[in-house]
Amino acid sequence: MTTPSRADIEAAAARIAPHLRRTPVMRVHGRDLGLDLPLILKLELLQATGSFKPRGAFNRMLSTTLPAAGVVTASGGNHGAAVAYAARALGVRAEVFCPTITPPAKTSRIEGYGATLHRVGAVYDEAREASEARAAETGALLVHAYDQAEVLAGQGTVAREMEQDAPEATHVLVATGGGGLIGGIAAWFAGTPTQVISVEPAACPTLHDALRAGRPVPSPVGGIAADSLGPRQVGGVMFEVAKHHVAEAVLVSDEAIRDAQRRIWQGLRLVAEPGGAAALAALTSGAWTPPPGARVAVVVCGANTDPASVA
Amino acid sequence: MTTPSRADIEAAAARIAPHLRRTPVMRVHGRDLGLDLPLILKLELLQATGSFKPRGAFNRMLSTTLPAAGVVTASGGNHGAAVAYAARALGVRAEVFCPTITPPAKTSRIEGYGATLHRVGAVYDEAREASEARAAETGALLVHAYDQAEVLAGQGTVAREMEQDAPEATHVLVATGGGGLIGGIAAWFAGTPTQVISVEPAACPTLHDALRAGRPVPSPVGGIAADSLGPRQVGGVMFEVAKHHVAEAVLVSDEAIRDAQRRIWQGLRLVAEPGGAAALAALTSGAWTPPPGARVAVVVCGANTDPASVA
Repeated sequence: MTTPSRADIEAAAARIAPHLRRTPVMRVHGRDLGLDLPLILKLELLQATGSFKPRGAFNRMLSTTLPAAGVVTASGGNHGAAVAYAARALGVRAEVFCPTITPPAKTSRIEGYGATLHRVGAVYDEAREASEARAAETGALLVHAYDQAEVLAGQGTVAREMEQDAPEATHVLVATGGGGLIGGIAAWFAGTPTQVISVEPAACPTLHDALRAGRPVPSPVGGIAADSLGPRQVGGVMFEVAKHHVAEAVLVSDEAIRDAQRRIWQGLRLVAEPGGAAALAALTSGAWTPPPGARVAVVVCGANTDPASVA
Repeated sequence: MTTPSRADIEAAAARIAPHLRRTPVMRVHGRDLGLDLPLILKLELLQATGSFKPRGAFNRMLSTTLPAAGVVTASGGNHGAAVAYAARALGVRAEVFCPTITPPAKTSRIEGYGATLHRVGAVYDEAREASEARAAETGALLVHAYDQAEVLAGQGTVAREMEQDAPEATHVLVATGGGGLIGGIAAWFAGTPTQVISVEPAACPTLHDALRAGRPVPSPVGGIAADSLGPRQVGGVMFEVAKHHVAEAVLVSDEAIRDAQRRIWQGLRLVAEPGGAAALAALTSGAWTPPPGARVAVVVCGANTDPASVA
């Protein structure tokens, strides 16, 4: 299984740039979030479609010849919206399989971008099985939500932009579900002094459990971020990166995530979905304490939720 | 009445930098907002306190010796929140006079930052009279919401950052109420080829009416953006700038503003208050059409509203 190199991520960045936004980095006083350290925020929730996911989706779809049957995927919602958006931009059909926990903020995007939505199963992995069967049946290209090298390379472009825009960062906090985002980010920072820290809900502890077991293993799937961080286990490609290049895997409670969502609204006037607020929750809950002198960067990675839920 | 120079705005930028955020510029495909041109967005709604206002408030308060009685101001809400935030940071008392139309999203900020809130009058100008009487009584420093040169110079730092971060912009769309923001921006761009376009609700047409009359004149105050764009007339300081350096004064309907708020949420996952969405509404409603070859920048300047209102 090939893990992406810096060169792969550079190539991905060039491939996807015409289609996507360069999201901002913003520096803020921690006191506006109830913290006593300055923070660097990568505002990836402002990416087209409301999450980082189209980076990987476009890179996968632009790395091959797209079949006449188009593309098929499974998703808790954000990746499905990204594939739908990319398929519309590239002029191909898309079918997206979502579990029943996918919220309306996400299914409306998928359908709004013109994809065909199928609701299958209670959680992501059941939808994934249905999507794989469908791709085998139609000959469509399967665009995996996290476990493909091209997807990781696309997500890794987040780290490339952060290094350019905030070279002072010593630690980067990233939410982990299936691990495509943190896998891409850790692949970029491999061999640099920048430490990559994984943050997961205690209710979805995939990377935490995998690092302890020494390999991807099934974990429970639950809690308020299960629609974005709820695969049953991390991907094999990301694990090859993470076992060497993720410094720590921190767990946070659902209460800490809700509190972080409220702080992000109150202090930044941004709407982060639970999975998008999880990385900050590691700091605001005290689950992770930066070492002295650290310059901490947080990836705020998704905004597809009911905005009334954060006030 | 002295209008701010570029040097005044440079001095303001140095003065306020330790206290405030450098807000991001983001480039987006217009199609995500239903437009067929690329856009440059200055995301000033992500400034501390949720609007551009602390730039002017800090610059005014850092340009003088603060009296023991602290500061007094009147505001539709955003400027009051900014003065309260600056007073807390600088360790002085603040009293803020707001009219009854000021929404909870703004009064809760004013009180949350520790200022004393007074509710006086139906619209901003009645609160302003009360604040002036209070300042005369207590000896507190009056921090005007828009009609002081230091306030304009502070708001002009928005333009300085835009010029650095998006030098390709040929036209800048800015919402006008009392005119502090556009006055500062037009003062910065005076003598450059960059055109500054004013956008106001048709229900609050202060600059439109002033440019037609050749001087600040009273206008109606109404509509959904009256809490941020609802002074009765533009300030005298800003008018000296605007009569030479604002290229056009466009009006938009309340319906166009609501539609722009929805597009900003749908396409950008940002929550803009009505006054913050007004500038974009000039484009999305067709009230203003860019000339061929224009590179248009839009200042999105405030986010203090109920997030449920934009979905």
